[in-house]
Amino acid sequence: MAKEITSKLNDYSQWYNDLVIKGGLADHSSVRGCMVIKPYGYAIWEKMQAALDKMFKDTGHVNAYFPLFIPKSFLSKEASHIEGFAKECAVVTHYRLINDPNGKGVIVDPDAKLEEELIVRPTSETIIWNTYKNWIQSYRDLPLLINQWANVVRWEMRTRLFLRTAEFLWQEGHTAHSTAKEAVEETERMLDVYATFVEEFMALPVLKGKKTPNERFAGAIDTYCIEAMMGDGQALQAGTSHFLGQNFAKAFDVQFLNKEGKLEYVYATSWGVSTRLIGALIMAHSDDDGLVLPPKMAPLQVVIVPIFKGEEDLNKLQEKCEPLMKELKAKDISVKLDTDDTKRPGFKFAEYELKGVPVRLAMGMRDYEAGTVEVARRDTKEKSSQKFDGIGTYIENLLTEIQQNIYNKAKAFRDANIREVNSWDDFLKTIEQPGFISAHWDGTSETEEKIKELTKATIRCIPLNNPQQDGVCVFSGKPSKERVIFARAY
Amino acid sequence: MAKEITSKLNDYSQWYNDLVIKGGLADHSSVRGCMVIKPYGYAIWEKMQAALDKMFKDTGHVNAYFPLFIPKSFLSKEASHIEGFAKECAVVTHYRLINDPNGKGVIVDPDAKLEEELIVRPTSETIIWNTYKNWIQSYRDLPLLINQWANVVRWEMRTRLFLRTAEFLWQEGHTAHSTAKEAVEETERMLDVYATFVEEFMALPVLKGKKTPNERFAGAIDTYCIEAMMGDGQALQAGTSHFLGQNFAKAFDVQFLNKEGKLEYVYATSWGVSTRLIGALIMAHSDDDGLVLPPKMAPLQVVIVPIFKGEEDLNKLQEKCEPLMKELKAKDISVKLDTDDTKRPGFKFAEYELKGVPVRLAMGMRDYEAGTVEVARRDTKEKSSQKFDGIGTYIENLLTEIQQNIYNKAKAFRDANIREVNSWDDFLKTIEQPGFISAHWDGTSETEEKIKELTKATIRCIPLNNPQQDGVCVFSGKPSKERVIFARAY
Repeated sequence: MAKEITSKLNDYSQWYNDLVIKGGLADHSSVRGCMVIKPYGYAIWEKMQAALDKMFKDTGHVNAYFPLFIPKSFLSKEASHIEGFAKECAVVTHYRLINDPNGKGVIVDPDAKLEEELIVRPTSETIIWNTYKNWIQSYRDLPLLINQWANVVRWEMRTRLFLRTAEFLWQEGHTAHSTAKEAVEETERMLDVYATFVEEFMALPVLKGKKTPNERFAGAIDTYCIEAMMGDGQALQAGTSHFLGQNFAKAFDVQFLNKEGKLEYVYATSWGVSTRLIGALIMAHSDDDGLVLPPKMAPLQVVIVPIFKGEEDLNKLQEKCEPLMKELKAKDISVKLDTDDTKRPGFKFAEYELKGVPVRLAMGMRDYEAGTVEVARRDTKEKSSQKFDGIGTYIENLLTEIQQNIYNKAKAFRDANIREVNSWDDFLKTIEQPGFISAHWDGTSETEEKIKELTKATIRCIPLNNPQQDGVCVFSGKPSKERVIFARAY
Repeated sequence: MAKEITSKLNDYSQWYNDLVIKGGLADHSSVRGCMVIKPYGYAIWEKMQAALDKMFKDTGHVNAYFPLFIPKSFLSKEASHIEGFAKECAVVTHYRLINDPNGKGVIVDPDAKLEEELIVRPTSETIIWNTYKNWIQSYRDLPLLINQWANVVRWEMRTRLFLRTAEFLWQEGHTAHSTAKEAVEETERMLDVYATFVEEFMALPVLKGKKTPNERFAGAIDTYCIEAMMGDGQALQAGTSHFLGQNFAKAFDVQFLNKEGKLEYVYATSWGVSTRLIGALIMAHSDDDGLVLPPKMAPLQVVIVPIFKGEEDLNKLQEKCEPLMKELKAKDISVKLDTDDTKRPGFKFAEYELKGVPVRLAMGMRDYEAGTVEVARRDTKEKSSQKFDGIGTYIENLLTEIQQNIYNKAKAFRDANIREVNSWDDFLKTIEQPGFISAHWDGTSETEEKIKELTKATIRCIPLNNPQQDGVCVFSGKPSKERVIFARAY
């Protein structure tokens, strides 16, 4: 057998950790809370980047790059931004090292103290709006549709690989508009982009909604989000899109001359997803044998394991597979023929299952003679013998089917685990089961906080296009107009 | 006219700055020494990344990501590394802000001091080799061929957009090998990749060579480089590839079990290019009208400016151009039809010249009737009237020709400005002319430093495959076996 994986049912958290570490996706580093993203994990991130970047560009956005550092004073310019954010962050205070006069190594040069401390960006609204001030004069300069791929740092105390790390990679879109209406449309457009990406590429169904005021991004008028259900029934916020109104424009004095020739503050949005999505991808679909990757996110989609004794057999099998490999590559399907003769086929099977390779072909000499090949799919673990002729098309269709099946399975699980709850007793019982709760809420922060305190459940979102129905709050009994989604969350 | 550009001859440095700022490539930021890379500049970087990333992957490398922060103690583990490097760097000492008890804003929390300071990476050898320790046990784990796309920070005192900034973007390859021979081969392979990229994509000829011990990367056994000549005759180091021997493996105790079952230290290479290349691209080819971009590096390759009065004309021209736009896009040629009716054609022409768009088409109603189109190439500024039929193929060929012509021009300039010098008097005179000097050198650091002190010229490289010939050092008169390249440099 390959590496030992903790069972999902026994210890979900350890199971997750085993997949990340033993699956070769990431490692802890020597720097507290910072991870190393290993090549296999980074290859997944590259797939995410490529798909998202294309969607951003197709919706008119361009990329740019803003400084890593933010002057400390910028952070407090937007009052609620600093209140809700950015307190736990990495602070640069000096700019030089010198040789330690008392011995080996280096020390910080006390004479090289910065006049104003610099903060390693936890998010870039402040530095970007300070820049936009110089770029925006008139309505002709708007909209400004910019995205940035970057690293950010938030000094988290309790970290988990991909899900919550001190440094992580993300993209942050920052757009500027001449009207509130246009900015809200942009906010919603980017939420749709995220939802489409997560559903179509990551095979993970999401709920689209708005956050309650309590859970809003610090400095936002409205925070939209997509929420996904993980394999243990907990929620994971997979992306957010914020309508920032004129808050940052006012904080950084960004005004434009409108068509009527009047000065007006600019309207803003920001939106982001991060390497956290890799954590979601793992937790949503995988099993006790390892990762289950949807084909569109798999760095390697097809592996061929030849079963052979000696070079002559190998050569025959290799020759047979070469046209297939060419055919698959021409279809933009990634494929590898594993000719390593130092590992047994069984060991390889386990390794590729751990890595979540969607389709595995195995071919021995009996297959070779019979013109067949064994096809194993990772999602269902079904094996079948197939004719080798036409196998390229078969695989292409199979990958599409696997992508769809993984989505369907996640959706069935999600739908089966959203429960309508109408009493506090029922809430307390149901929250101990995996899944989301749909319940009436009186709309107050007090009730929301009390529920969180008692059950660790938060309001994940108020779904978009939420049916309006009269009811009473599951906790306070006060009147309510709609149900909201509660869950424990990552 | 569009924006005013300082003449290259009058003030090369201001000319460069004008191109960067007025061409919309980058801006200064509010953070000392850090730049904002604007969308047009970032689009060039994306082209560079795409081409290089493909070349790295084609030579067997994979991407990964390592932490932004390096514990201070890591830097001093490799003695010459810290000696020659990393003294001017951003130091993180605290991890929290708190509200200022005496007033508005925030202050650094004195209770949140890090036990060990963290350095924002100036380069990642130390953090990466500290990680490789856990990844490498046996010769089977080698070679390890990893690249990282990242931001790095070096606290430069005098900065210039793209050429020298406190924060910049780059890629850094870090590979591990079981033999010195293999590592040297890798070092040379990556130098070749860089040379091919700069010559074929950036249309800029380079000299391949080795640095003298004085100019070596701190911690390297050998530093290979490519050196390019800018439009003012100065040198710019466009990329480096280092053979690190076992230095970092010894510093971080990275040993492997070789095929004979013996423990041995691992051999290393590292290699990198950065956003500095954008500076090189600008300085190598541009003129007083703005940027001249080789087609392979141009975010926009073809622009069509319709010349029209009223919507009816515009519609006709637009309809005429639509099939051409489709054809060009199918050929992977980027094209834009500029239908903005608030700017005059002359203004647009100047704007696109400033932006360095390689090919500009202009079509008015007379062209429309006659079935012709005006084609202007940015490199030579030649204009001609062409038949509209078959113009797609004409443009495709023209782009190839422009790419080649820009390279040829840069090469002719470079070759005409490398001068053999055989006496110190001649050296002193020649160094005041634009260009490189090829001269004998006695091989000592003392002479090298003295020449630098007296003339500001450094030894850019000892060319690879350098003809061996007896001579005497241009400065000391001592015997020499080969000529080396001297120049003033960016």
